[in-house]
Amino acid sequence: MAEGDPLVLFMPSGRRGRFALGTPVLDAARSLGVYVESVCGGRGLCGRCQIAVAEGQFAKHGITSSADHLSAWTETETRYTAKRAMEPDRRLSCHATVQGDLVIDVPQDVQINRQVVRKRAEARRIERDPATHLCYVEVERPDMEKPLGDADRLLAALRRDWDFDGLTIDFHLLAQVQPTLEAGDYKVTAAVYDDHGSRHVIALWPGLKNAAYGLAVDIGSTTIAAHLSSLLSGRILASTGAPNPQIRFGEDLMSRVSYVMMNPDGREAMTKAVREAIGVLIGKVAAEADVPEDDILEAVFVGNPIMHHLFLGIDPTPLGGAPFALAVSDALTFPARDIGLPVNHGARVYTLPCIAGHVGADAAGATLSEGPHRGEPVTLLVDVGTNAEIVLGNKHRVVAASSPTGPAFEGAEISGGQRAAPGAIERVRIDPDTLEPRIKVIGADEWSDDPGFDEAAAALGITGICGSGIIEVIGEMFLAGIISADGVIEGSFAARSDRIVQDGRTWSYILAKGDGGGNPEIRILQTDVRAIQLAKAALYAGVRLLMDKLGIDQVDRIRLAGAFGSYIDPKYAMVIGLVPDCALNAIAGVGNAAGTGARMALLNRGHRREIETLVRQIEKIETALEPRFQEHFVNAMAFPNKVEPFPHLAAAVTLPEAAATDLEPAAGDSPRRRGGRRRNQQSQ
Amino acid sequence: MAEGDPLVLFMPSGRRGRFALGTPVLDAARSLGVYVESVCGGRGLCGRCQIAVAEGQFAKHGITSSADHLSAWTETETRYTAKRAMEPDRRLSCHATVQGDLVIDVPQDVQINRQVVRKRAEARRIERDPATHLCYVEVERPDMEKPLGDADRLLAALRRDWDFDGLTIDFHLLAQVQPTLEAGDYKVTAAVYDDHGSRHVIALWPGLKNAAYGLAVDIGSTTIAAHLSSLLSGRILASTGAPNPQIRFGEDLMSRVSYVMMNPDGREAMTKAVREAIGVLIGKVAAEADVPEDDILEAVFVGNPIMHHLFLGIDPTPLGGAPFALAVSDALTFPARDIGLPVNHGARVYTLPCIAGHVGADAAGATLSEGPHRGEPVTLLVDVGTNAEIVLGNKHRVVAASSPTGPAFEGAEISGGQRAAPGAIERVRIDPDTLEPRIKVIGADEWSDDPGFDEAAAALGITGICGSGIIEVIGEMFLAGIISADGVIEGSFAARSDRIVQDGRTWSYILAKGDGGGNPEIRILQTDVRAIQLAKAALYAGVRLLMDKLGIDQVDRIRLAGAFGSYIDPKYAMVIGLVPDCALNAIAGVGNAAGTGARMALLNRGHRREIETLVRQIEKIETALEPRFQEHFVNAMAFPNKVEPFPHLAAAVTLPEAAATDLEPAAGDSPRRRGGRRRNQQSQ
Repeated sequence: MAEGDPLVLFMPSGRRGRFALGTPVLDAARSLGVYVESVCGGRGLCGRCQIAVAEGQFAKHGITSSADHLSAWTETETRYTAKRAMEPDRRLSCHATVQGDLVIDVPQDVQINRQVVRKRAEARRIERDPATHLCYVEVERPDMEKPLGDADRLLAALRRDWDFDGLTIDFHLLAQVQPTLEAGDYKVTAAVYDDHGSRHVIALWPGLKNAAYGLAVDIGSTTIAAHLSSLLSGRILASTGAPNPQIRFGEDLMSRVSYVMMNPDGREAMTKAVREAIGVLIGKVAAEADVPEDDILEAVFVGNPIMHHLFLGIDPTPLGGAPFALAVSDALTFPARDIGLPVNHGARVYTLPCIAGHVGADAAGATLSEGPHRGEPVTLLVDVGTNAEIVLGNKHRVVAASSPTGPAFEGAEISGGQRAAPGAIERVRIDPDTLEPRIKVIGADEWSDDPGFDEAAAALGITGICGSGIIEVIGEMFLAGIISADGVIEGSFAARSDRIVQDGRTWSYILAKGDGGGNPEIRILQTDVRAIQLAKAALYAGVRLLMDKLGIDQVDRIRLAGAFGSYIDPKYAMVIGLVPDCALNAIAGVGNAAGTGARMALLNRGHRREIETLVRQIEKIETALEPRFQEHFVNAMAFPNKVEPFPHLAAAVTLPEAAATDLEPAAGDSPRRRGGRRRNQQSQ
Repeated sequence: MAEGDPLVLFMPSGRRGRFALGTPVLDAARSLGVYVESVCGGRGLCGRCQIAVAEGQFAKHGITSSADHLSAWTETETRYTAKRAMEPDRRLSCHATVQGDLVIDVPQDVQINRQVVRKRAEARRIERDPATHLCYVEVERPDMEKPLGDADRLLAALRRDWDFDGLTIDFHLLAQVQPTLEAGDYKVTAAVYDDHGSRHVIALWPGLKNAAYGLAVDIGSTTIAAHLSSLLSGRILASTGAPNPQIRFGEDLMSRVSYVMMNPDGREAMTKAVREAIGVLIGKVAAEADVPEDDILEAVFVGNPIMHHLFLGIDPTPLGGAPFALAVSDALTFPARDIGLPVNHGARVYTLPCIAGHVGADAAGATLSEGPHRGEPVTLLVDVGTNAEIVLGNKHRVVAASSPTGPAFEGAEISGGQRAAPGAIERVRIDPDTLEPRIKVIGADEWSDDPGFDEAAAALGITGICGSGIIEVIGEMFLAGIISADGVIEGSFAARSDRIVQDGRTWSYILAKGDGGGNPEIRILQTDVRAIQLAKAALYAGVRLLMDKLGIDQVDRIRLAGAFGSYIDPKYAMVIGLVPDCALNAIAGVGNAAGTGARMALLNRGHRREIETLVRQIEKIETALEPRFQEHFVNAMAFPNKVEPFPHLAAAVTLPEAAATDLEPAAGDSPRRRGGRRRNQQSQ
């Protein structure tokens, strides 16, 4: 480590240091805190510690790197490559030693076993530092003169070779230790779970075990998504999803809480249902990746507070009314067997912390994924559901709240609304002159004025309109002037188009005329516009409240999480005032960010500490307690809202000239917890 | 804590310190590390922290102690005594404060609840520092502005009031936290298990819970003994025993190992049997003490290695042959639910460490109880069974071994032998002139020459001779000259008494003549003498080997553990050479020392660390590997043995003049592992 020693730079982390000639690259990496996997502890057996040399002059770093600056190819590497394929530029870092300046590339994804791999565009590289390690050790044989137990000698070997102190063996494994040592001729691989200061041997195999997997699961109220990753390479091997079977107990969250309140065994039934569904999903991802379920050693879960509680077997009733008390908010770690998951008997579950009574572990996962707290730009992260979970902030300060948007964005409470599924209208453009619409339908690639659309539509059927379609049609109706700034469908436009028709005392817009057969007429009613206004105003009011807390008038970035957020067009989100004014290219849908956060926590303990610490620091705002919420809500009913200026929006679209007029919400039109309302109804 | 502050001395620990006026006595005790129980955390609710003042002049300590040196009686104490009885000289140390010099008596046994109490003579006072604490806390109510979960606020309260950091809640409790807090109006009592650096809330009750219990269980191969103690007062509330149901799989240890080897489900069946029997015992002690099983929060187990392994569900087969490998030797802690014990669902099990393949957790318990390592005198601790477990040493060094004594001492392999039970001869004296015996029988108080014996004996029946009786009859035969120094029954004595009769080529002694009816003749055969010689020589050779290791020729104290050790007369143990020469009054039977050690580990974590540390330090001697063992064995066949001088013995009894002659062991008479022999037999 002296001044003249070779300089070694590790990529992509950029960490660097000087190392004595002959230092194994693996040791150099570890001493810098660069994560390089190794199962066999440097014996050249597992092949996990592969690295490559980036050759060339790295002037910025003052390094001329060459593969010749590594020690010569070793016999061990020859033995390894005789058994398993290794890319020609790779070396085993446990055997290759530093002989000169080097730029070392640590591959994020070392492939050892031939595995079915489904590459996914959204899969991001996650720096690894998993809680579970596979540790190959050679254990001393029994010795009459030193009558230490087999389990004790195993622990001594793990302490000796892997520096694990304070390690214990899971009780369920105890009876297996002796036969496993015998089967492996006293060479075994232990899975050590090492997190939060607790260290346990959770699984044990004879010989070298070179595969371990983990699950990241997002329990949505509608859909459960599961990803299976290798804990050793970080690679995603399979992803799948399934409907949440709790839907049969109640479509939305609050109806499930009500079910628990009305049925003595309701909680248990829903807990059982979701755990069983997760069990089936585990079977599916394991089969898809051709991985034994027994090789799954960890599972990380996220979900909103009610999903989180039901999954854990906790009564969610207190979450249904003020003060919306969580039974537990912090992250949890417990054995997977305690909830009967079909994984290794020693596997551990980690659940991310919940932020508040309506801002759950899913929001924590999305926050971890999108990292508002990691940078300077003020990021708004919104996950739209029946309750919108809203996180806002930057590295200096983060605030969070939820807004009771209701189910309108999910297509409920909308006359022609439906879930996003083939046959649903997802995109709409309205010609401002003719007022004729062009539409796009899920399942068909063509717009309605493209050739081939009619055939495709005939095959699919046009069955309704989904969330993104509703946003767009209302945005387009507003831009075309059909809807006034205060949200009224203008009857005067009936003179210009037969699509504007009277419905009693209000007017409607016929988006799809129907065919008199299977495909219904789809109308946008005044009540639909009002439902969307209520929902967007609630969401916006929550966002605005958080902006007030931070004392800001605009945000730098907007991230829309969840399926809804992925499909809506940022422009229309801004047109209808779902989100505050922002540069259009700074608004992005980020898909299942909660699931990505779960995967980050699965693969890196540091991310667990990061989100646990952040959640404690996040300032939680309860909208129900904030007097300004109602004021923001009222002002946000208009198109665009009357809360803020909208320079970016004005630059992106031509706004109608009419200014928003004062709009008083109709009686009963106030944002409140659905649960509270439903509870009152049911207690009557 | 200044020079002029009052001096407070705590008894019985003798710890002392100066404390500022007004310091609560409880705080003073804690700051000195004096254990005073408190469940309510100083609120004057639980009454556990009672102390008394020892009044008078304590010249040695320079203290004049008076009850007036405590603050005046408080309202809280009045409230407490209005609800519960407290002895008039007691004070609540959380409320009584230091006002002058004090000698404080910390009662080892504070009675709060009226409980059935069985005082047992052998019950010793154990300083308390249990792993499980009851901690009463007042938890903050849910707050919308600080949406911390109920479980998290509970942990925060435990951290605030009890200084518990790094605490987690057992997963099984999680769903109970919210309803328990509600039921207790946010005042609850948590049971915190805090040992070995791991801290968990294992149980939770609404309001003040003022009772917690623990079990200490000794799993003997013949008998299982269980003691129920209060974890709060240390008091033993019930003790009971039951036969080990594994007896039906094999009478002795090695036959049980054989059963496992011969039967694929043998291990499982024996594990199930012993756990079920323990479950029944738990029910018995709980019922006897009128304690709900659910209030039992801890259980400590000891047993020999094979009992230990079978109890834990581990295959004991490797213990049946060299290298006698333990599957696990160190102490273990695990949830009682993992083995299905009928105790609180969060209760923890602690098992003491095993010393070696034939020196088990029972020997560790006995060692903890008798404490050879705590003092200067060299103590020999022997637990006689099929294998004798031997521990020898003092505070500087401790060595341990086992000797294959075989079952002779338990009455097996002896013609008239039987287990210690009513009707068995337990004491024998032989008139050296007439050679007539006097006997005492278990179940009768009289000696055979006392009036009333015949009636008592007729009622009981004289059915055989138990271990202590065998030792005595052989000792008396030797002292009377009937047996020569080399163990031969002298036929020449037939001329002096018709009790000496010929049996083929050898002679016998008729101890009981029988009545021709239910009571058989009981003869001591030459083969019986030989069996005892083999057993005592094996035991003695083991002891001598350990003495060699320590380089000593005599021991200062002898402790005989177990039922056998409690009943044999130290004099005869020395006469036949079962134990080395020692002052007679330094030899004592110590009953179920293993069980006492288990109770010490139950009530005091310090004792767990003490025995864990000691067991690692104990030098384990495998007799099979020691060449001198055979030599000692041969020399120890004689009466008295030819290994050492016996000044104490010579002073205590008149030894026959004949010196021991050379005695070659007969073919096959060598000490070896019974398992090995039996194994060979069975594999033939």
